[in-house]
Amino acid sequence: MHFSSQLIEQAVDAFACLPGIGRKTALRLVLHLVNEDLPVAEKLGQSILKMRQQIRFCRQCHNISDEELCYLCADNRRDAQTICVVEHIRDVMAIEDTGQYKGLYHVLGGIINPLEGIGPEALNIDSLVDRVRTQEATELIMAISPTIEGETTMFYLARQLRDLPVRMSVIARGVAFGGELQYADEMTLGRSIAGRTTYSAP
Amino acid sequence: MHFSSQLIEQAVDAFACLPGIGRKTALRLVLHLVNEDLPVAEKLGQSILKMRQQIRFCRQCHNISDEELCYLCADNRRDAQTICVVEHIRDVMAIEDTGQYKGLYHVLGGIINPLEGIGPEALNIDSLVDRVRTQEATELIMAISPTIEGETTMFYLARQLRDLPVRMSVIARGVAFGGELQYADEMTLGRSIAGRTTYSAP
Repeated sequence: MHFSSQLIEQAVDAFACLPGIGRKTALRLVLHLVNEDLPVAEKLGQSILKMRQQIRFCRQCHNISDEELCYLCADNRRDAQTICVVEHIRDVMAIEDTGQYKGLYHVLGGIINPLEGIGPEALNIDSLVDRVRTQEATELIMAISPTIEGETTMFYLARQLRDLPVRMSVIARGVAFGGELQYADEMTLGRSIAGRTTYSAP
Repeated sequence: MHFSSQLIEQAVDAFACLPGIGRKTALRLVLHLVNEDLPVAEKLGQSILKMRQQIRFCRQCHNISDEELCYLCADNRRDAQTICVVEHIRDVMAIEDTGQYKGLYHVLGGIINPLEGIGPEALNIDSLVDRVRTQEATELIMAISPTIEGETTMFYLARQLRDLPVRMSVIARGVAFGGELQYADEMTLGRSIAGRTTYSAP
């Protein structure tokens, strides 16, 4: 691509570092910003800088936060006896969006993956064990990917927590709402049958 | 979506103003920047600000430029007798990418579109007429969209330039290279036949 401006080229290069954005899309975004009013582009540029420079992680649950303690951990109306253990920040958002969970969270920051060199020490596991040891949690809900790595992580966690008075549970695996049985994979369908629940007419 | 951080929410809002980027994609981009090293995010934020605050348009051809005169207008090896008239900056890039054009450009900034309230005075038409009047151009190549609005714009330009010693030409319309005849629309195929050229064996 021929750029008549270094400034444009630098902005295109920076945009093209984002996932799913190639150089053609990057150019389209940059030219859009050139045509928009100055405040639109300034808002984007400044919000990126401010976000990345000022972002903090909750010291208790490692969720993203503007304060030392995130709004979930700081909210004393939430059930501190239940901690939902997730891999990523976006899992917290997804569960919060359901509006059905009233406990706290713990963000591991990933799962144990020996092939990629991610061991337990790279994750927020020690702080979870500490939390269980020193706080009032009685149940840990594992909302972890149903993969080999996820199972490994849960197994490791169970070993770490075996002497502590806490119950570990796993979110239900099964056929999705609105999904058709014939399109579900064997693993999911098998688990869905094994984990059947009693039907109660509404 | 539940955001545990105002900073994240503001960044997502800003990204979601870009064309083709919804709030889910915006969130994915923002969380990517959170996980990346600080310089990656700073580079993006700063290049957007710098680009938008410092960008200039060439005083002669209205192409995007870092200087008062763009690198194309400033290059005296280019053929100043030919001016290619285009709608947008990205058209200049597209034609430059072909490597087949050695003349100069003139960016109109759009085309006449009465339905959207874009009249000739909103475009860089007067400066084109001035350029033809005061400089050495002998040919204007119209590389304008083959739409009703494009035809209107060319007609208007032809009227403005009728007393000046300049030839107007239009880029060839026809079937694209690698395209199959059966998938070409009637208009294109019709123009392609009407505008046929003599075949010379290579």
